[in-house]
Amino acid sequence: MRIDYLSSPLSHLLRSRTSRHFIRSATRTATWNRIPRDTSTMTTVNKTAHPFDKTRFDALLNRRFFYAPAFEIYGGVAGLYDYGPPGSSLQANIIAEWRRHFIVEEAMLELDTTIMTPSPVFEASGHVARFADWMVKDTLNGEVLRADHLVKNVLEARLAGDKEARGAVPVPVATDKKKKKQVKTTAVKLEDAVIAEYESILAQVRLGQLLRSRAWPAHAHALDHEPRLGHPVGEPQQFNLMFASSIGPTGQHPGYLRPETAQGHFLNFSRLLEFNNGRVPFASAQIGRSFRNEISPRAGLLRVREFTMAEIEHFVDPLEKTHTRFSEVAHVELVLLDKYTQASGQTTTRRMTVGEAVKQGVIANETLGYFVARIFAFLHMANEMAHYAADCWDAEIQNSVGGWTECVGCADRSAYDLSVHSAKTGQPLVVRQALKEPIVEEKAVAEWDKKSLGKTFKGDAAAVSAAVENMDEAALMRLKGELAQGPAKVQAADGREFMVEPSMLTIERKTLKTSSKSPEFTPNVIEPSFGLGRILYCLLEHSFWSREQDVERGVLSLPAVVAPTKVLIVPLSARAEFDPLVQEVFDDSNTSIGKRYARNDELGTPFGITLDFASVQNRTMTLRERDTTDQRIGSFDDVISTVTDLVFGTIDWSEACQRLPAYDGVQAVE
Amino acid sequence: MRIDYLSSPLSHLLRSRTSRHFIRSATRTATWNRIPRDTSTMTTVNKTAHPFDKTRFDALLNRRFFYAPAFEIYGGVAGLYDYGPPGSSLQANIIAEWRRHFIVEEAMLELDTTIMTPSPVFEASGHVARFADWMVKDTLNGEVLRADHLVKNVLEARLAGDKEARGAVPVPVATDKKKKKQVKTTAVKLEDAVIAEYESILAQVRLGQLLRSRAWPAHAHALDHEPRLGHPVGEPQQFNLMFASSIGPTGQHPGYLRPETAQGHFLNFSRLLEFNNGRVPFASAQIGRSFRNEISPRAGLLRVREFTMAEIEHFVDPLEKTHTRFSEVAHVELVLLDKYTQASGQTTTRRMTVGEAVKQGVIANETLGYFVARIFAFLHMANEMAHYAADCWDAEIQNSVGGWTECVGCADRSAYDLSVHSAKTGQPLVVRQALKEPIVEEKAVAEWDKKSLGKTFKGDAAAVSAAVENMDEAALMRLKGELAQGPAKVQAADGREFMVEPSMLTIERKTLKTSSKSPEFTPNVIEPSFGLGRILYCLLEHSFWSREQDVERGVLSLPAVVAPTKVLIVPLSARAEFDPLVQEVFDDSNTSIGKRYARNDELGTPFGITLDFASVQNRTMTLRERDTTDQRIGSFDDVISTVTDLVFGTIDWSEACQRLPAYDGVQAVE
Repeated sequence: MRIDYLSSPLSHLLRSRTSRHFIRSATRTATWNRIPRDTSTMTTVNKTAHPFDKTRFDALLNRRFFYAPAFEIYGGVAGLYDYGPPGSSLQANIIAEWRRHFIVEEAMLELDTTIMTPSPVFEASGHVARFADWMVKDTLNGEVLRADHLVKNVLEARLAGDKEARGAVPVPVATDKKKKKQVKTTAVKLEDAVIAEYESILAQVRLGQLLRSRAWPAHAHALDHEPRLGHPVGEPQQFNLMFASSIGPTGQHPGYLRPETAQGHFLNFSRLLEFNNGRVPFASAQIGRSFRNEISPRAGLLRVREFTMAEIEHFVDPLEKTHTRFSEVAHVELVLLDKYTQASGQTTTRRMTVGEAVKQGVIANETLGYFVARIFAFLHMANEMAHYAADCWDAEIQNSVGGWTECVGCADRSAYDLSVHSAKTGQPLVVRQALKEPIVEEKAVAEWDKKSLGKTFKGDAAAVSAAVENMDEAALMRLKGELAQGPAKVQAADGREFMVEPSMLTIERKTLKTSSKSPEFTPNVIEPSFGLGRILYCLLEHSFWSREQDVERGVLSLPAVVAPTKVLIVPLSARAEFDPLVQEVFDDSNTSIGKRYARNDELGTPFGITLDFASVQNRTMTLRERDTTDQRIGSFDDVISTVTDLVFGTIDWSEACQRLPAYDGVQAVE
Repeated sequence: MRIDYLSSPLSHLLRSRTSRHFIRSATRTATWNRIPRDTSTMTTVNKTAHPFDKTRFDALLNRRFFYAPAFEIYGGVAGLYDYGPPGSSLQANIIAEWRRHFIVEEAMLELDTTIMTPSPVFEASGHVARFADWMVKDTLNGEVLRADHLVKNVLEARLAGDKEARGAVPVPVATDKKKKKQVKTTAVKLEDAVIAEYESILAQVRLGQLLRSRAWPAHAHALDHEPRLGHPVGEPQQFNLMFASSIGPTGQHPGYLRPETAQGHFLNFSRLLEFNNGRVPFASAQIGRSFRNEISPRAGLLRVREFTMAEIEHFVDPLEKTHTRFSEVAHVELVLLDKYTQASGQTTTRRMTVGEAVKQGVIANETLGYFVARIFAFLHMANEMAHYAADCWDAEIQNSVGGWTECVGCADRSAYDLSVHSAKTGQPLVVRQALKEPIVEEKAVAEWDKKSLGKTFKGDAAAVSAAVENMDEAALMRLKGELAQGPAKVQAADGREFMVEPSMLTIERKTLKTSSKSPEFTPNVIEPSFGLGRILYCLLEHSFWSREQDVERGVLSLPAVVAPTKVLIVPLSARAEFDPLVQEVFDDSNTSIGKRYARNDELGTPFGITLDFASVQNRTMTLRERDTTDQRIGSFDDVISTVTDLVFGTIDWSEACQRLPAYDGVQAVE
């Protein structure tokens, strides 16, 4: 089956965003998406003149309970959020699409493994030793800060101070959004070499390279003061980001909550391989909760301590990372920011097709390229390198909180994980697969009459049999010829000779098929890993706008495929006449129709069906579209079949308008 | 919308089981289900003459990777299991049906709250103090045992010893299935009073009443020796079943993994109430992972340390536990084992309709009765009482491991949880809802000309205005009459009199509507709580059988709606001619058709489509049904439309047979 990028479920998110929802304000249009778009299809419906208003957006999400801080009545816990009814529904819909797009479409092997994990697993994987961030403590107020964030704030303040000292207009630099306090800058000129060093460190901070798996660099002198408050800070310390616990009643079995679902795939590798009839490549997939005990999470859904992720582990022969469907995606054009460019602190992107990228070695292999292209269906590509990865491409989405934020990682984890678990457990986690074509050969085959062989040679039977076994094709055929004449001599390995009767041994040429096996190897793993909460947040942010005439209320232009509620059904009055018509009223909030529409605009409900007084007499209903507020009218059957087609995405609104006439707005008077 | 029990998705599980899958062996038929069934519709297709074979069943689940012990290559961890591809898919399908049956059908508010929970929440809920089991330690080998299990084993052994001493044939009693060791009995005669006491304790053990929230009973003398090994055991100690951890880097915020999803609903009560426009009743629902650090889990999927559950919290006015849809279920007949009967150690069940049960007070109220009936759709009802419950009905399913096992709890948690969280946080978790009918009254209303009121009376204006405000209807109407004649006297509260001009004050009778509010109350909570892993396990066990001619291999007769794979598509040879026909081959395992069918019988795949040599010439395919192994033939279009209808459940196999002729089994020779 061909992959049609424009009709695949996930690309629907992208498509609807680029064609309808993305164009929100001129400034954001220019930067959101570096993916080349066909401008001829860009319908620039600028729905609102107002720039993105984060305060109003947050108020809407809170008011409609998309999500909220968990344990709010207990004062809340940083980095933990609960999803309310529309958020849960949106998440369930995104997961359903993800399952369809990846697991069903690509026949992946789904898994559901445990979160609680005994310590030895993460000792082997390296997480116990290395899955840590550096932290520093504010020695005055005891607050714990992430060291890399502190370094960033300090260095940016110093660079700003330098600019000021060199005569530039003083500009405020990094601000702490939560506390709304500005970093204080001091106008101190720096040496050019120091500036270059600071800029290099900042590039590493941005890459996350100061975070994990290395000793704290020599720049610890940067950490002398917390820049907002001017407080002194203590020595940097490593803090492991896994939540620790203990399994069972004895206290002797330490465990951790998984920080990724991946280890559950690797530990089940042998079972998965068997399920796939012993052959690679195959992919396993898992959607589930993971946990990271972040030091001081402050970025809403973008950095949380508990999150739902969807991970794919694609197991592949390390010498054969081609992909059978690569040709279907080779033409897809990407905008790439490769690791060499990024390491140099630059952000210049390159535009090329996936085919070119693999050919030039910018993307390491076809399989990785294939997944990058599959993910591209709704995301922009950029790059980041993780400690175990041979090649790693992340998909980032721009948003108002985190700028360009990694939402999907696409890593080649090589054979690292399977190798370390195999070494630790002594279990072979390898593939030795049957090759497709059996080896067919015509061969002389010797068959003994076992009974007379033993009877004749007794203790020497094994030696005689071995002597014949070791003969090559020519020798066997010669022996066959001799036996045709009568008894023949056979020489054992120790030089002794034995006479074999023709009745004891038959030699025939036979056609043999032997199924051939590849040499043993540890597969490599390509891992696309999706942060569903981040994607959900960005989708909400990109869907948000306000109508010109009602700035206070927002609209979420969520595509019908993921919208929490597809259709609002509402009677224009609570009169009993409607009861037989309205079997199920989704919004019986007993308020005016205007308020109900506004509430459902905020919930992202794409369509509304209204029953008015005329409905009872004429058996007609009106159908309203959320983004345009356009209303059409039709018979019950016509409206229901139209809205069904709209929800399933088989027609769009312009086609619906051809089926149903415009509603003239004249309401039947009661 | 009426609830049609026979067509609702979950009841499909039951229906298909009673009509097709349940009838597996005579011994099991008699006991599985106490629900009265219409025997006229029982198609007694006894599929196999062999009784249920647990060893073969387990081997199948393991071989096909429905689930397996987690961390197997690390030696495994008791009570943790991973679901493989068919198990994950089966679970996802059960969850999808659950979501449709409850959340969508009853318009419940779905939630997705965090697993990690700060300690104060569980201090308030009582879990920190009371969510514990008693354990004892084997003082020789250090093994930790659940005290109630030990009591049960000891007392059962003593009762057996008594029977033996009284001359009965010695019979082995409880066996430890894992270690295959039998409890040793000693023929010691007991006093009749002691026997009665032991039997009463055993009844309490069976009810789970020795488990939680009470001091260890005086029968600790029962615990002197571990009965299998004869080892001495230590003093019983309480062990809290929650996994503990610590949130954030300071170590100052202890947290627990939730043992139920329920608290997440309660903590979000105010937001949910607002989402529901301030009105009760409403229900929230959540599907998610919970954790219980069981002392020594040994019952496979029936008692695990990490599990997926689906919980509903139905919030209701404590004085108004009627249910608007109760009449739709009142006729449903249940077999009940009520708490009074059970407390007396009896197991006599009563048969009655839900309507009668509520009327007689056997089930406390309509709402609880409604949910019991809804759950009844696929489960048998029995009862167990939990520590916080006002009334509690559990649904049990019989299986080979745990006997009658609680798979759904249906509890009335009263106002307990909301009250304790409100008390701890100081947040009011109450309802004060608008009543439907506003209060309409005709009333005399006084309106001042504010300007001349102030100008005339200056500092006394408020006193004059208050005097009029406090007048009753009659006094106001009298004043109106006086003002119609000219200036009138008004007496202030302190006795002073003031002259009011007619132009300053208008008094009119007006019709006033005031929306009335109910008094504040804390809602009660009805909680149906589903252990999805237990349901999944029982469903697998009840679906399992073997064909007469191939006892080694099993068949899982899973209903199509939940089967991991719906249709197997397979070409009869790997010839290239088939490639254009087989766009997607789900099983390309390159083995014989018989092995492929057998593999898919074990995976529970209900239908198979086969392309043979004739397919290329005649554009026909064959369709095979799993349970009967019946094969039909038809054109591509006919087979595809038939199998689609079968999978969506709109037709059954007998109807499919009317559409497609039988396949004569003659295969085109290549």
